[in-house]
Amino acid sequence: MPGPTTYFDPATTSHLDPRTRDLVERRARSLGSAYRLFYRTPLEFVRGEGAHLFTADGTDYLDAYNNVPSVGHAHPRVAAAIAEQAARLSTHTRYLSRATVDYAEDLLGTFPAHLGNVMFTCTGSEANDLALRIVRAATGRRGVIVTENAYHGVTTEVAALSPSLVGADAVADWVRVVPAPTPGTDFAAAVAAAIDSLDAAGIGLGCLIVDTIFASDGVLPDAPGLAAAARAAQAAGGLLVADEVQPGFGRLGDGLWGFDRHGLVPDLVTLGKPMGNGYPVAAVVARPELVDAFAARGRYFNTFGGNTVAIAAAQATLDVVREEGLVARAARLGAVLAEGLRAIGGSVVEVRGCGLFLGVQLGDEGTAREAVNALEERRILIGASGLRNDTLKVRPPLALSDADAERLLDGLAAVLG
Amino acid sequence: MPGPTTYFDPATTSHLDPRTRDLVERRARSLGSAYRLFYRTPLEFVRGEGAHLFTADGTDYLDAYNNVPSVGHAHPRVAAAIAEQAARLSTHTRYLSRATVDYAEDLLGTFPAHLGNVMFTCTGSEANDLALRIVRAATGRRGVIVTENAYHGVTTEVAALSPSLVGADAVADWVRVVPAPTPGTDFAAAVAAAIDSLDAAGIGLGCLIVDTIFASDGVLPDAPGLAAAARAAQAAGGLLVADEVQPGFGRLGDGLWGFDRHGLVPDLVTLGKPMGNGYPVAAVVARPELVDAFAARGRYFNTFGGNTVAIAAAQATLDVVREEGLVARAARLGAVLAEGLRAIGGSVVEVRGCGLFLGVQLGDEGTAREAVNALEERRILIGASGLRNDTLKVRPPLALSDADAERLLDGLAAVLG
Repeated sequence: MPGPTTYFDPATTSHLDPRTRDLVERRARSLGSAYRLFYRTPLEFVRGEGAHLFTADGTDYLDAYNNVPSVGHAHPRVAAAIAEQAARLSTHTRYLSRATVDYAEDLLGTFPAHLGNVMFTCTGSEANDLALRIVRAATGRRGVIVTENAYHGVTTEVAALSPSLVGADAVADWVRVVPAPTPGTDFAAAVAAAIDSLDAAGIGLGCLIVDTIFASDGVLPDAPGLAAAARAAQAAGGLLVADEVQPGFGRLGDGLWGFDRHGLVPDLVTLGKPMGNGYPVAAVVARPELVDAFAARGRYFNTFGGNTVAIAAAQATLDVVREEGLVARAARLGAVLAEGLRAIGGSVVEVRGCGLFLGVQLGDEGTAREAVNALEERRILIGASGLRNDTLKVRPPLALSDADAERLLDGLAAVLG
Repeated sequence: MPGPTTYFDPATTSHLDPRTRDLVERRARSLGSAYRLFYRTPLEFVRGEGAHLFTADGTDYLDAYNNVPSVGHAHPRVAAAIAEQAARLSTHTRYLSRATVDYAEDLLGTFPAHLGNVMFTCTGSEANDLALRIVRAATGRRGVIVTENAYHGVTTEVAALSPSLVGADAVADWVRVVPAPTPGTDFAAAVAAAIDSLDAAGIGLGCLIVDTIFASDGVLPDAPGLAAAARAAQAAGGLLVADEVQPGFGRLGDGLWGFDRHGLVPDLVTLGKPMGNGYPVAAVVARPELVDAFAARGRYFNTFGGNTVAIAAAQATLDVVREEGLVARAARLGAVLAEGLRAIGGSVVEVRGCGLFLGVQLGDEGTAREAVNALEERRILIGASGLRNDTLKVRPPLALSDADAERLLDGLAAVLG
């Protein structure tokens, strides 16, 4: 989630050209007041390629924000897989599909053996919502522990456990919020206290859920105390849900999944955003015995979830990640960016992250807001994050090139140095 | 929702050919025990066209079940729109998109003027879940009234108000279940009693939600008492949510939306399944003042919801519905099918429905199960529905041809006559 201060202010339209202003106003009338646009001056793109987005007049923006088109905007291999399958057959999981089973086995082969089942949804929100349903069926307990500024999605149930969306005071009564694992906090002690609190309230611990890069908490790659806290939650009969919607599929440059970096043994893993490079496909990967407990209470079906086109997109995306060596590229260019960012000095307080998921902490929210809009003027797309919205989130498509990385560092140095 | 008895029984595989059995077993291992397959003998399709699905050996099945590929399986116009857009740009609603605003205006033009905003999701489940969040923000009340065998989706919150999925006894404590509007029931009185019950419990009425064709309640096109009940709910300060996920986009052969047939004035309308002819796209259409109340508590974003490819698919689908005159075709062929079905006699107790959404009530669940599997053997795909799973749900793609309708009636007559 980007910081709210990097959004366009609909009350301020006088600086827009007439054509943009007209579109902004028509959009506000039809989509309504809950939608947001990025940046002081909203952007309209018509084409994408690699880590670049282009406006109608051909102006080239370097995309250092979008983690969904992970293998590159409009990647020809993924676009062709979608086109071919959409022209042939788009149908659901109540018929047999060889490609679906092939992809399921391929995907599961990237996880530890105990995670033997995959269930498909359309969005990361649906994946986290389904994971919760499975947790509750398996444990009989409703309680959930989340970090201070966590974001896990927009359905009623996962919004109610997402303090970054609804505010820490407005989470549901079965939620316990703990500080994110930073060097100054005792994460394991905070989780232990939250377990006690859920027990004392007669709710009980269903699961601890963590985004394994803590993206909305400001990007916390080291997460001291995380493994111990997870073990304690599991020892108390709770389940561990690793939310890989943002870090997953190789972005961290160290294998495909963020939980591996911390030595976690998750009971469920949720996937989303980059899974189909933009096609709506997401998933829950889980221990089969948990799925059995869920299945004992009812069947599962999601009309579009894992349909034949979604599977074609997901398989092509995973193939490209491997064949273009994008995990290694994320590691290499991530290190280049981190080193370059640390050398900038200026308003940079700290650079955290791994692979192509970097958090650049600045002094305060105002500095971050100005930096995001100044970078937009330099045709570089970036967002802000963190509990105080003071952290730039550098999270480009993994298709970033060496030249792109250089351009990104030059822009960041000019704005922050 | 098809009746559970029309699913494949994983304990019975000896009648399957070795290749199918192997795929079924691999699928069960990877997707787990909550998934279902249709029919005594599961089917594997490799291609679709119009209202037809084809297996690898070229066998042609007539599809009288799938309402998602509404303008026809793999419709070339929709497939081309998806292919073109996926190869150019797939991005989200935080950038400006002219096509998105054009589609929003086009879609809203098909609704009464008071429904002035549209918000995009990926699935009907997400649309109903978002509608509930809006209802609660606007009314401050949590209570929901649903019909006896209603189905509104699979997120935690909408599953909890879907008796057909979780059982009438397992709905949440803020849900009141009323009998569906049939000639034998006083629907308005039942809704009035449910409102009183929610008030007495201190919960209060947030909304009455109805599928405007009552698909999972057995297909009830007349719905006596519905309009009076809706007025009473609205007079009591509740909102009316018209769930058009199944009946919408012209299937009923009488305009695009089912609520119009009943003279309802909904506050929110939810859309899904046929909206993108299989591409995951869905929406909530609402009064702007309700969206404003929701927006006062937080922004809205859905990563894939209404992305540029989803909009291309949705616009092409709506264009085809109009240009191929599919609403009129649904009316004409629906009448042919209804008349033909009524002439069959045999095990047909009653034929209900309108347009290409017909319920064929048989004597009992066993008869319906046998009919579904006998029709599969005749290469006709159909499902069962209703409170007692005794109703065949005839719901083909709107691309059904005159010859298809004749073949469907011949098959139904042979099995039911």
